[in-house]
Amino acid sequence: MALEKFFNPDSVAIVGASQTEGKVGHEVLANMLAAGYRGKIFPVNNKAESIQGLKCYPDLESIGETPDLAIIILPAKIVPSVMRQCAKIGAKSVIIITAGFREVGQEGQQLEQEVIRIAKQSGIRVIGPNCLGIIVPANNLNASFGGDLPRKGSIGYLSQSGALLAAILDMANARGIGFSNLVSIGNKADVNELDLIKALGKDPGTRVIAGYLESITDGNAFVNQAEKISGKKPILLMKSGGTDAGAKAASSHTGSLAGSETAYEAVFERAGIIRCFSITSQFDFAQAFATQPLPAGARVAVITNAGGPGIMAADAIERQGLEFAKLTDETIEKLASKLPPAANLYNPVDVLGDALADRYEFALNVVVNDPNVDIALVILTPQAMTEAAETAKVVAKISRQNPSKTILASFLGANRIANAVEILQDNDVPQYNSPENAILTVRLMVDYVQWRTRPKRVVKLFPVNRRKVETIVEKHLRRGMHEIGETESKEIIEAYGFATPGGSIATTAEQAASIAQQIGYPVVMKIWSPDILHKSDVGGVELGLNNPKAVMDAFDLMMYRIPKKLPDANILGVLVQEMCKKGKEVILGMKRDPHFGPLMMFGMGGTMVEVLKDVSFYPAPLTAEEARQMLISTKTYKMLEGVRGEEGVDIDGIAEGLQRLSQLVTEFPQIQEMDINPYVVGPEGTTPIAVDARMRVDQVQ
Amino acid sequence: MALEKFFNPDSVAIVGASQTEGKVGHEVLANMLAAGYRGKIFPVNNKAESIQGLKCYPDLESIGETPDLAIIILPAKIVPSVMRQCAKIGAKSVIIITAGFREVGQEGQQLEQEVIRIAKQSGIRVIGPNCLGIIVPANNLNASFGGDLPRKGSIGYLSQSGALLAAILDMANARGIGFSNLVSIGNKADVNELDLIKALGKDPGTRVIAGYLESITDGNAFVNQAEKISGKKPILLMKSGGTDAGAKAASSHTGSLAGSETAYEAVFERAGIIRCFSITSQFDFAQAFATQPLPAGARVAVITNAGGPGIMAADAIERQGLEFAKLTDETIEKLASKLPPAANLYNPVDVLGDALADRYEFALNVVVNDPNVDIALVILTPQAMTEAAETAKVVAKISRQNPSKTILASFLGANRIANAVEILQDNDVPQYNSPENAILTVRLMVDYVQWRTRPKRVVKLFPVNRRKVETIVEKHLRRGMHEIGETESKEIIEAYGFATPGGSIATTAEQAASIAQQIGYPVVMKIWSPDILHKSDVGGVELGLNNPKAVMDAFDLMMYRIPKKLPDANILGVLVQEMCKKGKEVILGMKRDPHFGPLMMFGMGGTMVEVLKDVSFYPAPLTAEEARQMLISTKTYKMLEGVRGEEGVDIDGIAEGLQRLSQLVTEFPQIQEMDINPYVVGPEGTTPIAVDARMRVDQVQ
Repeated sequence: MALEKFFNPDSVAIVGASQTEGKVGHEVLANMLAAGYRGKIFPVNNKAESIQGLKCYPDLESIGETPDLAIIILPAKIVPSVMRQCAKIGAKSVIIITAGFREVGQEGQQLEQEVIRIAKQSGIRVIGPNCLGIIVPANNLNASFGGDLPRKGSIGYLSQSGALLAAILDMANARGIGFSNLVSIGNKADVNELDLIKALGKDPGTRVIAGYLESITDGNAFVNQAEKISGKKPILLMKSGGTDAGAKAASSHTGSLAGSETAYEAVFERAGIIRCFSITSQFDFAQAFATQPLPAGARVAVITNAGGPGIMAADAIERQGLEFAKLTDETIEKLASKLPPAANLYNPVDVLGDALADRYEFALNVVVNDPNVDIALVILTPQAMTEAAETAKVVAKISRQNPSKTILASFLGANRIANAVEILQDNDVPQYNSPENAILTVRLMVDYVQWRTRPKRVVKLFPVNRRKVETIVEKHLRRGMHEIGETESKEIIEAYGFATPGGSIATTAEQAASIAQQIGYPVVMKIWSPDILHKSDVGGVELGLNNPKAVMDAFDLMMYRIPKKLPDANILGVLVQEMCKKGKEVILGMKRDPHFGPLMMFGMGGTMVEVLKDVSFYPAPLTAEEARQMLISTKTYKMLEGVRGEEGVDIDGIAEGLQRLSQLVTEFPQIQEMDINPYVVGPEGTTPIAVDARMRVDQVQ
Repeated sequence: MALEKFFNPDSVAIVGASQTEGKVGHEVLANMLAAGYRGKIFPVNNKAESIQGLKCYPDLESIGETPDLAIIILPAKIVPSVMRQCAKIGAKSVIIITAGFREVGQEGQQLEQEVIRIAKQSGIRVIGPNCLGIIVPANNLNASFGGDLPRKGSIGYLSQSGALLAAILDMANARGIGFSNLVSIGNKADVNELDLIKALGKDPGTRVIAGYLESITDGNAFVNQAEKISGKKPILLMKSGGTDAGAKAASSHTGSLAGSETAYEAVFERAGIIRCFSITSQFDFAQAFATQPLPAGARVAVITNAGGPGIMAADAIERQGLEFAKLTDETIEKLASKLPPAANLYNPVDVLGDALADRYEFALNVVVNDPNVDIALVILTPQAMTEAAETAKVVAKISRQNPSKTILASFLGANRIANAVEILQDNDVPQYNSPENAILTVRLMVDYVQWRTRPKRVVKLFPVNRRKVETIVEKHLRRGMHEIGETESKEIIEAYGFATPGGSIATTAEQAASIAQQIGYPVVMKIWSPDILHKSDVGGVELGLNNPKAVMDAFDLMMYRIPKKLPDANILGVLVQEMCKKGKEVILGMKRDPHFGPLMMFGMGGTMVEVLKDVSFYPAPLTAEEARQMLISTKTYKMLEGVRGEEGVDIDGIAEGLQRLSQLVTEFPQIQEMDINPYVVGPEGTTPIAVDARMRVDQVQ
């Protein structure tokens, strides 16, 4: 991997190694020694001859060779000079554990910049500063003060919080959970989450990438990389914090609905990243991904020695929308041949409270060999005769023998099952302290498999008139105008293949009536002013006008009333438009997220978007399938399909609209946010009409 | 308490006590002895002189005195004869641990009936059969084979699954969680969940009632009792299973939407019962209720020694809809006076990674004395200098000193915080393995307080015409008719104060036009037949007819087309009705749950109920406030209030409709289910109209 020398160094210098117990410099060296590191260790400290039995060097140069990895634990002010020494001796991988940089204010920030400047000049990669260090169990490397070396395993963990990493390490050690790598990225002044998922993505010892992040440095690059990696190994992230300040300043519907949480959710979904909301659930999920095969389907069978927990598991399967495996007749017969008469042969299979390990073995073997079973959950309660440890061994054996079936355990209790739990963990059978947590984990595994087997992403490119859009956008930016009004917004989307309603601006009541006559009744009238964004709020919209008198009345009333409400508005006239007679109103939109780029929105129109906030988001560019999924993932999607005999609307028409919009905002990064609202869609085969549109543009930095 | 002698017996006979290790009869006696039971123990076994050092009796009679409690562990077939002995010597409290009764089929069921017959005759109360026994730590009573005696505490636990109870006991013992009582109710042939919540409700040693149930014997009595008890102590229940078979046979909208899950949710909500979905979360909740004061409000402050988990807690507070305590200026100043400059003084208060116990003590003291803080969550991560155990002591002390503030801890890790966790548990500070679980617990505590302080329930009684309803219902039942058609359903609801649209039945097109002329255009027309329930599905509804021609055309078309679709339907004519011009359509309904009685439903009408299933349920009889809450708890409630300038509807009018319906179904238990659909509601001050109604009646058993 790219950060090879960090994770597998042949020699490590510890600059600031200390003899004084309790000091970080002491603990890092002690941890290196305790872990049984097989390479050379060079303690560096100009006040000691030897530390913890190792020869000590006054500075890096006096070592006489270049260590693969240097760990710096000296006070922040000295770190730049140590970095210069590193540069001089040609060290290329440095972990700066020392705190007191960017996180403490301006002075620290300058120090950090200085450190990074030296690093860049000399081709040094830096992890930290302000971090706990790194741990690689397979290489007996514990270059950290985070705790004891954990078991070797296949979870690669990165954390932006050192303290949390220490807690996680402690918990993992107690539960016997193994890691390939643990990295505390601290201030991530150089090496960041992107470098690490790349490195862990390539690391053959890492089967699952897990992490805790508070910020993502380069959103787009991270998500693109994550999407590639997720195709091979799952990424499980806790992402905390995030401010919605951006959403407050929004000028469009889409903008006001798209907070930063929305963006994370959308891009994580696109990239297949599995979001976790607590360290305990992250553990629950990670251990299953790390140890068990991915499920071939969603059909779960439960084996239990007690009815109650069996029902609880069945309830959880239903709540999580998984399938309850229907055992074959052959399976039922086999089970019947050996289980006691009172046993329940159907899923959940109840082997009864007096089941010894051999009965579990028989039943589990039969069940996992049933072609209708993808996943088996083995539940055990500690009853008088229960052989918990023996049963754990049996489950472990069957799990090993059946590499195509996903097997999880939920042994309930504590002391009476402690040995059994250890056996399960040691043998790669994930164990859950409640059936519900096991089933939730299964749900996420099934979701991940579905994501992995999604169709290949092909983004369709429509023939469009880019030149036209360029002209309008550039004209606005040249003049320092950021809002593009309805007329020109519509010209832009017309250039990208959208149909807009016919109509013209009238400046007199008679002209309005004559336009209406031309386009045919009924018509819609809208006040026309660059200063009025929310026309209906000032009485500037009239619908369904049926005859010349109604049109003229509406014109005169608007001209009389609106200037009274908005005396400063520059009113240019009234737009007379054809009325979209039939169809449902929806909203298409886009908000450019500062970290992740254009985020497409689809929403149900009318009051639904107000009341239910029934919208969905997905990052552009969209494939046809993704556009359809955006529709399907709204709560009221069925209304588009048609309910109770009502005719449905042209779903593909909406999806195509989203794709065209996605192409527009991908090709024009100047567009910051936009709405097409309403987008009126009729039955299949009709052309949807973009009745209104607005957008905001800005210079691209 | 009513089951006094079960929980605090002066003497216990163990019928079936055994010398053979591994046998249940051995284990129960061993557990009694190990627990240090202070009363007399009489082992009964006709094959031994003494067992485990105690004199053994050949039968109950030879004891020579009447034991307060008899525990039976002999094979099922012998149990009736032992029961007869109990009756003879006057024993009044019996635990039957033996299995092999109702749960194994018909023969067992007969045995169980025999046992209960003897018990009833002789005034004996029975716990079990097929149970684990009972445990009362305060009385050193472990009359069970469930495991070791747990710590004395204030959680009373009842479980319908013995195996689950054993697992819970094991977990609780490992976590140091204490109990007042643990009861395995087994087949609950006599003593059931109702008896137990009554007993635990009165037990001064029980502060929290928790349990696992698969069925509730007398739903109504249980809920009423639970509601009373919840006013004094919280009830936390896991309820598993439940079949929706009942819902499949439903003939109304309400019926098809009301599954048994819905009923449990509604009645639990009404009774203040806190529903838990796993044993781990039940523990999380129970320990806080058992040890901490109820929060005075919803304002949470967080104290942490690491930024990451602090942000995670803040995220959780936001997600759970709790308030983030805004610390007073005085608090901030005090914190600033002693905390290091890099510390965060605002909520979450970050005392930094090098915080020793004294810094936690200072900060926590300041924070809990802030009048803006109701709840404090103390987070600790095990860092190099962290004094976990000392900090736990400090938190425990401050918790004791501040009985009006709710204090929870989330110390993260395992081995490095194990001592600290023990100190927290021993000192009644609930500890959570993730900030998220702590915050979820706070949410439930706040909800419970809100439930406890809800306004007093006053059910309004409206003046109605009961006689009229009686006549119609009795007529139907006498004739074996179970569906009451639109006309008579409307007569019934009119008798309860509902307004229905004017209109009459026409049998010719001309008559239809003349009726329309009388009531005024526009009108609605509906096919009139006792055989057609879903009129619109067969083209039997026409809306908005504006003139005589339209009315006559509609009449003739219905008469021509519908008999073709439904040749067997007896068509009586067409109903011509006034059209409710304005207002929103909603649904009012009721489904009588077999366990809990009438369940009221409110739903948004039109396509909303189809697509979103936007309905709410609550058990009758309803108070005005409960009726309003049913409205508010729908997803699209805002649409009733009016959105985007649209006028709202008469909320109180709907609430009154629900109350009137609630009165009707409470006074007429014959009504099994009913819909008023649509119920058209206009702006405030207008009278809502019940446009259509149907109901199903049955003999009351």
